[in-house]
Amino acid sequence: MITSHHNPLLKDIRRLTARRDRAGGRFVAEGEDLLAAADAAGWEPVHRLRAGVEVTEDALAKVSGLGSGTRALAVYEERWAQPSGPLCVALWGVRDPGNVGTVLRSALAFGAASVALGPGTADPYGPKAVRASMGAIFDVPVARVADVEELPGERVALDARAGEPLRGGGTGGEVTLVVGAEREGLPGAVVEACDRSAHIPIHNESLNAAVAASIALYEMTRVP
Amino acid sequence: MITSHHNPLLKDIRRLTARRDRAGGRFVAEGEDLLAAADAAGWEPVHRLRAGVEVTEDALAKVSGLGSGTRALAVYEERWAQPSGPLCVALWGVRDPGNVGTVLRSALAFGAASVALGPGTADPYGPKAVRASMGAIFDVPVARVADVEELPGERVALDARAGEPLRGGGTGGEVTLVVGAEREGLPGAVVEACDRSAHIPIHNESLNAAVAASIALYEMTRVP
Repeated sequence: MITSHHNPLLKDIRRLTARRDRAGGRFVAEGEDLLAAADAAGWEPVHRLRAGVEVTEDALAKVSGLGSGTRALAVYEERWAQPSGPLCVALWGVRDPGNVGTVLRSALAFGAASVALGPGTADPYGPKAVRASMGAIFDVPVARVADVEELPGERVALDARAGEPLRGGGTGGEVTLVVGAEREGLPGAVVEACDRSAHIPIHNESLNAAVAASIALYEMTRVP
Repeated sequence: MITSHHNPLLKDIRRLTARRDRAGGRFVAEGEDLLAAADAAGWEPVHRLRAGVEVTEDALAKVSGLGSGTRALAVYEERWAQPSGPLCVALWGVRDPGNVGTVLRSALAFGAASVALGPGTADPYGPKAVRASMGAIFDVPVARVADVEELPGERVALDARAGEPLRGGGTGGEVTLVVGAEREGLPGAVVEACDRSAHIPIHNESLNAAVAASIALYEMTRVP
């Protein structure tokens, strides 16, 4: 059993649970719920550390991003997919990792086929995003994209002010919902490259980015 | 101009920007956007501190919950309302202050008349909730409630598994949407005391609490 947090494996893990500078194509999930989600989705951990089994409780607490009380963590290899439909959500410049994780969770809840991450979007495999996803990171394919052209189906730019109110419910075709940063919105060139714009009708033009993406997913998939 | 963070006023403010043990019926909002939202909504600050005006930049950074770069903060008196309709959202046991703030923001976006906070729900005037509200805390009346009986109109318990799919769009009557904690859901006694249950149709029974509340608000207010 590992007892010292100077152990080289724990040092490597500490680097993955730290907020910044995660590298090397691996990431950490912490807590029994997340590990169970990974198991259920068929992800084999590179390392699995359970308090009192592979590692002492104290040594685990020292490398955990959550601190004391953590019972288990595991290291996985990142997986990257191609953006796919019939329903895809693309995030552009969404910097908050909690929002990225929440969108992954909603994408799973509403049956989106993939989440595409454009430039300036937070790392979906960072600890905060993984946690906010509540395990959805293991179920929803994530893709990196540099250009709107890579997105499947009709590309709908979600824009607080532009286009028609978003209407889903049985359009049937392949669609990508493109969601921008909260303040800046979508860059003009991204909106231009999309097939059309649509908005969620609100009183004041301000919704949390993850909420906006989630409502759009709800609208696109609800039974009319 | 205040230059030392040992200044008694700054010490008081430090207590309000700390995460815990806020007391005394006052709260802090930080950043020019939030202060502008307060001004626009007619809230008079008890104190207003601008870097380089009432206080040095360094001294302000030391009391700020956001750290260096903060240009302004202000202290306000809390306001508490009665729960009111025609559309009210009630949160029960929603412990995450970010979620509470996000619900306030969505409540403003979809024109809810008030947000009611039941037992075990995070402080809406705590720094994290105020920030996540993006200023909506100054526009949406918030109420504390101990009992479902205090909530206006038809009380609809949002429950991942129970009742019919939530249907809005022109029911017309006064409604309170009652939303529970992510894991535990609503206590049985709360569900019992509601008039009916409804759910947002999803694949896996898991949505972020603020996302669930926001989608319910969207559904209740959307044009059919």
